[in-house]
Amino acid sequence: RSCSRVARAKVLTIDTMNPTVKNAKYAVRGPIVARAAELERELNEGMKKPFDEVIKANIGDAHAMGQQPITFFRQALAICSYPELLNDSTFPEDAKSRAYRILQSCGGNSMGSYSASQGIDSVRQDVARYIERRDGGVPSDPDNIFLTTGACDGIMTMLKLLVCGEGPTRTGIMIPIPHYPMYSATLVELAAVQVNYYLNEEKCWSVDISELKRALDEARHYCNPRALCIVNPGNPTSQVETRQCIEDVIRFAAKERLFLMADEVYQDNVYGHGCRFHSFKTVLFEMGPEYSNTMELVSFHSTSKGYMGECGFRGGYMEVINMDDEVKAELTKLLSVRLCSPVPGQALVDLVFNPPQPGEPSYDNFIKERTAILSALEEKAKLTEQVLNTVPGISCNPVQGAMFCFPRITIPEKAMIEATEQGQQPDVFYCMKMLEEAGICVIPGSGFGQKEGTYHFRMTILPPIDKLQILLNKVKEFHQKFTQKYS
Amino acid sequence: RSCSRVARAKVLTIDTMNPTVKNAKYAVRGPIVARAAELERELNEGMKKPFDEVIKANIGDAHAMGQQPITFFRQALAICSYPELLNDSTFPEDAKSRAYRILQSCGGNSMGSYSASQGIDSVRQDVARYIERRDGGVPSDPDNIFLTTGACDGIMTMLKLLVCGEGPTRTGIMIPIPHYPMYSATLVELAAVQVNYYLNEEKCWSVDISELKRALDEARHYCNPRALCIVNPGNPTSQVETRQCIEDVIRFAAKERLFLMADEVYQDNVYGHGCRFHSFKTVLFEMGPEYSNTMELVSFHSTSKGYMGECGFRGGYMEVINMDDEVKAELTKLLSVRLCSPVPGQALVDLVFNPPQPGEPSYDNFIKERTAILSALEEKAKLTEQVLNTVPGISCNPVQGAMFCFPRITIPEKAMIEATEQGQQPDVFYCMKMLEEAGICVIPGSGFGQKEGTYHFRMTILPPIDKLQILLNKVKEFHQKFTQKYS
Repeated sequence: RSCSRVARAKVLTIDTMNPTVKNAKYAVRGPIVARAAELERELNEGMKKPFDEVIKANIGDAHAMGQQPITFFRQALAICSYPELLNDSTFPEDAKSRAYRILQSCGGNSMGSYSASQGIDSVRQDVARYIERRDGGVPSDPDNIFLTTGACDGIMTMLKLLVCGEGPTRTGIMIPIPHYPMYSATLVELAAVQVNYYLNEEKCWSVDISELKRALDEARHYCNPRALCIVNPGNPTSQVETRQCIEDVIRFAAKERLFLMADEVYQDNVYGHGCRFHSFKTVLFEMGPEYSNTMELVSFHSTSKGYMGECGFRGGYMEVINMDDEVKAELTKLLSVRLCSPVPGQALVDLVFNPPQPGEPSYDNFIKERTAILSALEEKAKLTEQVLNTVPGISCNPVQGAMFCFPRITIPEKAMIEATEQGQQPDVFYCMKMLEEAGICVIPGSGFGQKEGTYHFRMTILPPIDKLQILLNKVKEFHQKFTQKYS
Repeated sequence: RSCSRVARAKVLTIDTMNPTVKNAKYAVRGPIVARAAELERELNEGMKKPFDEVIKANIGDAHAMGQQPITFFRQALAICSYPELLNDSTFPEDAKSRAYRILQSCGGNSMGSYSASQGIDSVRQDVARYIERRDGGVPSDPDNIFLTTGACDGIMTMLKLLVCGEGPTRTGIMIPIPHYPMYSATLVELAAVQVNYYLNEEKCWSVDISELKRALDEARHYCNPRALCIVNPGNPTSQVETRQCIEDVIRFAAKERLFLMADEVYQDNVYGHGCRFHSFKTVLFEMGPEYSNTMELVSFHSTSKGYMGECGFRGGYMEVINMDDEVKAELTKLLSVRLCSPVPGQALVDLVFNPPQPGEPSYDNFIKERTAILSALEEKAKLTEQVLNTVPGISCNPVQGAMFCFPRITIPEKAMIEATEQGQQPDVFYCMKMLEEAGICVIPGSGFGQKEGTYHFRMTILPPIDKLQILLNKVKEFHQKFTQKYS
């Protein structure tokens, strides 16, 4: 329908709004989550439900699940907020010195000043040094670091830069299926062409080069594929890619002239036996100058995941490698229109990537807190896989990394028919029932994309272990009842 | 140029990037500001310049200019960051109770959790109550409040919602000239049509209904004008619109079926003799149900301006009035893709719009700090107008509100010729010279738009009064020398 002026009550209606916004889908905060919030309200108002509480396992929100913040980060952030605390003897010296350094880099020594659009200089320096340590000495230039409002902001910004052309020359962006739906929502908004490549569920959701090739070749008939997005460790699929796989992906991208976007926000969340995180950048540099001098790569990271789980601060960064200088200037300009990313988030980025060192007063406690969180996550990853795989009709790949499981579920024929009658995808129908009957909020696989005829859901592994055990037992019980009812 | 694949070193180049991003301009952080940063580095490295320091009067960044944060806000934010401080007897009880209430509304009682995409419930409630107090009891519904990442985020989001159609049905957005260039940059990015209406410099930069009508009628030949943006108090033009003007604008927008966007971020910054801030919403409701039941209005506000000047926290909100329910749902979805606005910014929004009350321990100090800042701003507004108007060739309207002056300057013929030879706008040439010769960084009027043949610059009035005095004297001296040199 056109959006020309007609005599109608409202200027802005569903029919006259931006159609690309309307067409975007974002299941992670969609109708199931809205219904979960409603159920919570109903419970609070005393309505009777078949459950006592709604467990929101729909999102990777660690603190909401009871994880405690890392003391050191919060002490330093408190000092940054209220610098009088520099004189408080109960605060450790390392928190004070970090906060002092951050404040020295802020205009007027206040987090209330705008920073440079690219981010505070000293924070970008600390990030670059962190990357060098992580990557065994591969150099990192602070000029290539851009601080962002969470990782999404960086990803959306890069996608925006990449989009051009019309019709068959319109930019195509290759994304994994299943994928975190921020990607597809952003591509719809940008009117870019989403080019799907399927992760291999049989091989623990790994990236398959022949599948990349198939997807690319098909896409070239109708668009101009220019970038390849890889999420490692995966979301919602939790796989950790091997070094060999990453090398193959880089070779593929180089040969096919694709800009590489590596979403590496779960780099500290690796639990799988024999798994290790390899940054795209390290592998790129190990492959020699033929690759490291030319391949365009951007890597995204965030303070929202890892062991710190500080989602609310919206801290993040991206590192761009081999980006054209003129484009880099345009990137800075694009970021400058929204002035700067939130300074408290930038301060947190600094703290996370420049944490207490051996010998500093907060070191022991920092290590203790970090280790406890990461060990618990590892235990929860194993528990989740193990319990779910005891349920007939559920099969779950090992949770090698990240914060989610993405089990495959068998939905009985009769349930599929009832779903169709209600105009719902079968897995939406399944997840809605799980919410209404067991009070568990998970996201249907269709929100992430999945091979036709297969069904999944995404669930976080973040609840405390005793609660996770209850949650998994409820899922098990629900699945058995559901299967029985519809068989 | 097309962006099809050709044999070229980089995938992403200036020729193959998103052309709308490339075409966007944003002078507030443009080449002059970059050169100012360079000059600062050169001074630090010991290079000799005709000045000792660069004074960056280009942006409304209060804390960077030495303004101190409001103690109460920062105390409460420190507690929110590090809740152990709830047990610290040196913190006042009202800061503790505010922080406690904010934390109670956060998932897991932590600012590290994601909030609802629309913002924390209790914060939106506090904002709604603030609006009701401000508007003498006109009701405000927390469901109509959306917390944003600074005001820009809200403005960009609303503009994005409004854009549709192609060619002559493409959405047109009416914006003032001169205007804050975030508007034009966003419109270019969205490929919307910018419809200019000129503020009346002779009448202290006020909005003129006949000019609105002229602009609208012309625009209807080539686009579909759907929204009217008003910035009150103005940026860069500092005018405070009269109640009558606002009523006339509402009547005009109603008659012409335009969605009203009121950028009211400077509502606490009013200094002009006889000037008062009238919110669009109050005036709308005073005009009776014919208007208040139907007119679509969105108003933007921020924690970055006013007396608090907390730019770095990126806090803000928008209130939507009479928005179609389906569109509101789409707005929420659109916001949800970036998950939520930064929670520390949301916390600050709560504090700013629910400040200490009479009888609370922080009240007296809060009032003292706020009054000192606002009185100083008033004094600086008057000083600026007065000093600039003593300079032949500079004429400056009263700084009625906001944080800027936007004086008109006479540029001698010879300077215009030299500018043209250097491929620069005359006012860019002028401001560049002011930077190189006097170390003063201001933004040329062409970055905001101005009537052809007129020249201006924007300068903040934020430096401390003694420094502002120096700054104004330097501007005076520079202008005299410049005029002499080119006469």
